[in-house]
Amino acid sequence: MSLGIVFLSEVFGTGMLTLLGCGVVANVALKGTKGSNGGFLMITWGWGIAVFAGVYVAALSGAHLNPAVTLGLVLNGTKEFVPGIPVDFLSTITYFGGEFIGAFLGAVVCWLSYKQHFDAEPLAANKLAVFSTGPAIRSNGWNLLTEFVGTFVLVFVILTFGGTPSGLGPLAVALLVVGIGLSLGGPTGYAINPARDLGPRIAHAILPIEGKRSSDWSYAWIPIIGPLAGGGVAGIVASFMPIVFTAAT
Amino acid sequence: MSLGIVFLSEVFGTGMLTLLGCGVVANVALKGTKGSNGGFLMITWGWGIAVFAGVYVAALSGAHLNPAVTLGLVLNGTKEFVPGIPVDFLSTITYFGGEFIGAFLGAVVCWLSYKQHFDAEPLAANKLAVFSTGPAIRSNGWNLLTEFVGTFVLVFVILTFGGTPSGLGPLAVALLVVGIGLSLGGPTGYAINPARDLGPRIAHAILPIEGKRSSDWSYAWIPIIGPLAGGGVAGIVASFMPIVFTAAT
Amino acid sequence: MSLGIVFLSEVFGTGMLTLLGCGVVANVALKGTKGSNGGFLMITWGWGIAVFAGVYVAALSGAHLNPAVTLGLVLNGTKEFVPGIPVDFLSTITYFGGEFIGAFLGAVVCWLSYKQHFDAEPLAANKLAVFSTGPAIRSNGWNLLTEFVGTFVLVFVILTFGGTPSGLGPLAVALLVVGIGLSLGGPTGYAINPARDLGPRIAHAILPIEGKRSSDWSYAWIPIIGPLAGGGVAGIVASFMPIVFTAAT
Amino acid sequence: MSLGIVFLSEVFGTGMLTLLGCGVVANVALKGTKGSNGGFLMITWGWGIAVFAGVYVAALSGAHLNPAVTLGLVLNGTKEFVPGIPVDFLSTITYFGGEFIGAFLGAVVCWLSYKQHFDAEPLAANKLAVFSTGPAIRSNGWNLLTEFVGTFVLVFVILTFGGTPSGLGPLAVALLVVGIGLSLGGPTGYAINPARDLGPRIAHAILPIEGKRSSDWSYAWIPIIGPLAGGGVAGIVASFMPIVFTAAT
Repeated sequence: MSLGIVFLSEVFGTGMLTLLGCGVVANVALKGTKGSNGGFLMITWGWGIAVFAGVYVAALSGAHLNPAVTLGLVLNGTKEFVPGIPVDFLSTITYFGGEFIGAFLGAVVCWLSYKQHFDAEPLAANKLAVFSTGPAIRSNGWNLLTEFVGTFVLVFVILTFGGTPSGLGPLAVALLVVGIGLSLGGPTGYAINPARDLGPRIAHAILPIEGKRSSDWSYAWIPIIGPLAGGGVAGIVASFMPIVFTAAT
Repeated sequence: MSLGIVFLSEVFGTGMLTLLGCGVVANVALKGTKGSNGGFLMITWGWGIAVFAGVYVAALSGAHLNPAVTLGLVLNGTKEFVPGIPVDFLSTITYFGGEFIGAFLGAVVCWLSYKQHFDAEPLAANKLAVFSTGPAIRSNGWNLLTEFVGTFVLVFVILTFGGTPSGLGPLAVALLVVGIGLSLGGPTGYAINPARDLGPRIAHAILPIEGKRSSDWSYAWIPIIGPLAGGGVAGIVASFMPIVFTAAT
Repeated sequence: MSLGIVFLSEVFGTGMLTLLGCGVVANVALKGTKGSNGGFLMITWGWGIAVFAGVYVAALSGAHLNPAVTLGLVLNGTKEFVPGIPVDFLSTITYFGGEFIGAFLGAVVCWLSYKQHFDAEPLAANKLAVFSTGPAIRSNGWNLLTEFVGTFVLVFVILTFGGTPSGLGPLAVALLVVGIGLSLGGPTGYAINPARDLGPRIAHAILPIEGKRSSDWSYAWIPIIGPLAGGGVAGIVASFMPIVFTAAT
Repeated sequence: MSLGIVFLSEVFGTGMLTLLGCGVVANVALKGTKGSNGGFLMITWGWGIAVFAGVYVAALSGAHLNPAVTLGLVLNGTKEFVPGIPVDFLSTITYFGGEFIGAFLGAVVCWLSYKQHFDAEPLAANKLAVFSTGPAIRSNGWNLLTEFVGTFVLVFVILTFGGTPSGLGPLAVALLVVGIGLSLGGPTGYAINPARDLGPRIAHAILPIEGKRSSDWSYAWIPIIGPLAGGGVAGIVASFMPIVFTAAT
């Protein structure tokens, strides 16, 4: 196992994550698709299975797919991310890099797959919503808190999966993400992952999307800081508890 | 394993249960959320995955998360809740305490996560519904019966999980809870757990929720007595059958 | 293992099946419940998890829960239903008896659990629909064919589960039943089980349900003959194929 | 294992796939069924479980059920499809033949199961939609791209399942297909399988369906070429990555 493989693994896995995750939002939100107005339950299943697929694709690197998970593992005191990859500055940065770049690329492929429906959609806000999250009611403090809580749940529960036979691993993460969406996604659309939000937001800013609005940069820091704080605190809290982490697959 | 760890484990697990469980009701019932009017199927999946997450978090203590489960195990004749924790008055009270306190705390965090939507919601009844159950048609006898039946199913089926490989455990409980909601949740909203109902009801009474109504204390005993009776009888009936209990994870 | 235990096991398991299965229809179809108008997807998940719970409860007897499954195993050439219970006339009748009696009893408990909503419901057709199936467009021949096909799929696919690790067993059956409902339940409401239909239909005829209509006996033979034929033919076809049956748990 | 068994296995498995898959579309799209207007989420679950059932039925031959999967395995450099069946021209053609014939036959049985509702449905377009896919917005290039991406995801992720315990196999494929439908099914209805589209399209052309329209042959090549290209490229890309294929069951 080398850092190059870790990087590629996270790029592919996080790319799969945002391709499928942004895809289900496109299917529900954009004009004229077969899943138009499919509802929130449909969105949560789509994102859950997006994580499911991403976990398989990135199994070699432990399938973080999320800087908040990586940070949670670091602060949890994990010694090796996967066998042969010690936790240090360089490996941590490698995970971060793969996650953000993968998330960006997945969003680009999603845009291409739904190109005609982006063109047909009249509302610029719906186009942005495919890429990045936005709050239902804007408030720095409360939005930050909701993202913190959602990501704490994500990382904390993942850290308790160690006692489970590995086969359920990807399915367990998928169901957990469905559940966080259903239960804590109401106020902010549950980014719970800085790469999932920032990568596609950059794609939204760069891509030649017809009739697009601004990429809402004033909100962009919340789904970065909230999840990193939530994941980090989850890692620390879990380090005081007698639970054992095992790689998700 | 000590009683202190059992207590903390049940606090964390039951807190996760009500954070996510009350959360999905908030998402469906409160004004302006992304999951507004998401429907009953969405609520049942949210509660099912809330149990799923709670079971992982509280795996160390066997993840009762519910006084009706604890009582069912006692009356089933279980010798030890988990290895090293014999079934006696003190350990039973420890489980009960962890369950009620966890359920209270989870509801508080849920309220904070949806604070702005509680403020925006005009109907006081919807605010209470996030915390505690209430009957569709009020009737002490019939409501009690429905809660009895639902909890009997919960505890009785869990007691039959012993023959299953452990990996499916948390998933099996989650699906069972989804199913009880779908099938028996129509008349009373399926508390099937005294802690899940009373803990958040106390939170509703104490928290400074804007524009809240009374906490409906005249109904509060039904989702306590019904589930305890249902779970207890399930434990007794199961003790006469050749089925074996194994801890859920 | 004795025939008495087989009988009780099937009574409890099939009772769980119709309690939860009829329950989800009550929740969707009756007036004033929390799941009113929850839709067909909700019904199929409810029935799927009803089977899931029933399979665990009746694991000791192999969890047939359905005369069409029993008949399919007989015609498949199975030697023993479970270890110690040879396939013969007496054991087959014991399974049938437990299935029909359990299905009847489960429907009675369902009615009690939804008593107030049965009283509140104005349409007699909706009350019958909680208990038994009825065709969308009445036609003996086509309705029979649809029930034949649905039950063939049920029994044939179950007979192929032998190659699967046992842990997924109850979940696999549950998902299969969800799928048959989604895909083949449109014309007749997918009885695919003579006990599931006749037992509750007898309950509907006997119980003092306010404002009930006739129990539609002219249709009652179709969800008996169609499923028995479909399950039987599936057992025969599968006996010519190199697939192996293993008990569902 | 002989090629004859491989052929029959793929016929039965792919027949199960289109029987249940086309069935859920019939239930949602045709007039007067119990699942009318059930929505896109219902369709994706129906297709996912259709794959689930088909995988069990065709476990002996590795359950390709899809020429794009077969081609992906060939280009991935697989040596044997299943033990005793080397990858060569004859075996590849045998898989293709079983897949297309099975898909055709399953659609015929679906039509018979929903015969009365086909007759009752006034819109010819809805009748065709039960059999084959069609684009939301017609455009050879973009439609082809979307089918390419969806099938790439299908085959690429399946090729990463090797590291998973086999028990989850059919469930993992089922969830993946649900997810591809939710996330990438919006523009073209996700054929992602040449047999699933062409087999039923031929059935639509041949069967004496009352009031049918043309079978839209001008579009028919897109759900053949797009999936074959996507599956093939996935096989090639995966061959450069350190992931291992294991048969789905």
